[in-house]
Amino acid sequence: MKLLRYGEVGSEKPGLMDGDGVIRDLSAHVDDITGAMLGDASLDKLRALDTASLPAVEGNPRLGACVAGFSKFMCIGLNYSDHAAESGLAVPDHPILFMKANSAIVGPNDDVVMPRGSTHTDWEVELGVVIGKEAKYVSEADALDYVAGYCVCNDVSERHFQTQLSGNWTKGKSCDTFGPTGPWLVTRDEVPDPQSLGMWLDVNGTRMQTGSTATMIFTVAQIIAHLSGLMTLHPGDVISTGTPPGVGMGMKPEPVYLNSDDKMDVWIEGLGQQTQMVREDA
Amino acid sequence: MKLLRYGEVGSEKPGLMDGDGVIRDLSAHVDDITGAMLGDASLDKLRALDTASLPAVEGNPRLGACVAGFSKFMCIGLNYSDHAAESGLAVPDHPILFMKANSAIVGPNDDVVMPRGSTHTDWEVELGVVIGKEAKYVSEADALDYVAGYCVCNDVSERHFQTQLSGNWTKGKSCDTFGPTGPWLVTRDEVPDPQSLGMWLDVNGTRMQTGSTATMIFTVAQIIAHLSGLMTLHPGDVISTGTPPGVGMGMKPEPVYLNSDDKMDVWIEGLGQQTQMVREDA
Repeated sequence: MKLLRYGEVGSEKPGLMDGDGVIRDLSAHVDDITGAMLGDASLDKLRALDTASLPAVEGNPRLGACVAGFSKFMCIGLNYSDHAAESGLAVPDHPILFMKANSAIVGPNDDVVMPRGSTHTDWEVELGVVIGKEAKYVSEADALDYVAGYCVCNDVSERHFQTQLSGNWTKGKSCDTFGPTGPWLVTRDEVPDPQSLGMWLDVNGTRMQTGSTATMIFTVAQIIAHLSGLMTLHPGDVISTGTPPGVGMGMKPEPVYLNSDDKMDVWIEGLGQQTQMVREDA
Repeated sequence: MKLLRYGEVGSEKPGLMDGDGVIRDLSAHVDDITGAMLGDASLDKLRALDTASLPAVEGNPRLGACVAGFSKFMCIGLNYSDHAAESGLAVPDHPILFMKANSAIVGPNDDVVMPRGSTHTDWEVELGVVIGKEAKYVSEADALDYVAGYCVCNDVSERHFQTQLSGNWTKGKSCDTFGPTGPWLVTRDEVPDPQSLGMWLDVNGTRMQTGSTATMIFTVAQIIAHLSGLMTLHPGDVISTGTPPGVGMGMKPEPVYLNSDDKMDVWIEGLGQQTQMVREDA
C-alpha cells in the first residue's frame, strides 16, 4: 500500500494511492496516518479493504508528510561509502545520529523556505524508514520486522548553521520546512529489498545526486538494531538514513547552494517523487 | 502558578500546586498541560480561578513531566562559564544545540534506567524553559515574553554513548528516562529573574553540583533569540539551558558515574525538587 495524507496544512486526511494513481480516502477507516495505525494488524485491515470501493479524491490536493504525530525524526549522517569517498571523510565506526526538529517536517511538495541569513542551503535525497512497532534491543536479523514502510525524505541542510554555529548538526537540519517527507509511505511488503533502491535528486532539472541504497555503510537493519540499543523506537518514528554523493557542499570546483526560485525534484525507486520550490523567508 | 501533571504514566491529569502544597485538580478547566494552554490569555484564565474551590487531590500521586505533547526538547551544551573552566574547554561562540528525543522525557521522580551496556551514566541539573507562544526571529529584548514558565530538568547523559559512538551528542542524551522534567512548570510571573537562580544536585545525599544561573554564558533571552532565528519555537517546546560545574565526568582524580540504586536529588531555587532512583535495565 501507498499510504498518504492529503489536504491543507493541519487538516490532512488519510488516504492511499491506488494502482491507477487515484487517491482514495481512508477517513472512514482510520483517523490519520500515525504510529497508532502502523502495526501489522492495523495495516492488514486496510489491505483487506476493497480499494475500488473507497471514495476517490477529486482534483490534485496538496499532500502532507506521509506520517503524522511521531515522537522523533532521526537522521543518519555520512552513511554512503561513495559519499564519504567524495567528501574525503573517513567511514564512521557507528551510524552517526542527529535529530531533525519535528517542527521542520512538511509535505513532499511544499515550499522549502530558507531562513533569514541563510546562504548555504543544500539538498540531500534520503531513504526514510517509518517504524511500525515499538523496538528496543532488537537484533539486526529481526530489525526489518519493526518497519512499517519506507518513504522519500529530503534532508535539507543549512551548511553554515550546521557547521559554523558551535557544534552538533541539529541547527542546520531543523529549520522550518527542512524536512519534506513523502509523497507516500510504501508498506514494507512492497519493498522487498531496501538495500537496492535507486535514487536521484535534480535541481532545476539538472541531475545533482545519483545513487543507490546499495552503497549504504550501515544498512537499514543495522541502523535499527543500533538505535534500538540506545532508546526505544516508537511507531511512527522516522529514520532518514543518509545521502548518496552529489550534495551542493561537495561540488567542484566550488560548492553550490540553493537560491530562491530553485526547484528540487527528489526520487527513490518505488517510493515516488517530491518536488519543492525554494524561497527566501519574508 | 505551579502547573503540574499527576497520575499514572499515560493518563496524567492537569493540576496545580497551591500555596499550602496541596495539589488541586484542573481537569474541569483544561484537558492537559500542553502548549495549547500556555499562552498568556489561557494562563490568565487559570489565574482567575479561586484555587481553594478546585478539588484537592488526595494522597501522594506520581507526577508526570510538567508539560506534555510538545514538538521538541532542545538542550544547550557547555553553557556555564564555571563549568567550561572546570572542563578546560573554550567558551563557545554560539549556544551549542542538541536535541533530546521526546521519548526520553519522564516525570520528575520516575526511575532513571541505564540502558544495557551503559557504564557512564551522568547527571546534569538544568534550568528548563517552556515556550508559551510561537517564537520566530524574536529579539533578545522581547525573548522572555515568549516564555510560559520554567522548570527543573535533569539532562541525564551516557558519556560513552555521547562521545564514543561516532559524533553528535544525541545518542547519549536520548535514552529512555533520561529527561526527568518537573515537578512543576512555574509561570514566568513568579520567576522575575531567571538569571539569578541557585541550583544543586545530590547523589546519595552528597552535593555534587552547586551553581547559579548567574554564570550562564548565554542567557535565556539570548538562547531564545538565537534559536528562534533558526527555527520556530512552538508553545510547549522545552529548552534545557545547560549545567553548572560538578558533573560526574569532570570529577577528580577520576570520573564518577551512576550505579544501580543510586539516588539523585535535583533542585532549582523557586522551581522545586526532583528525586530519581537509578536502576539497570532488565
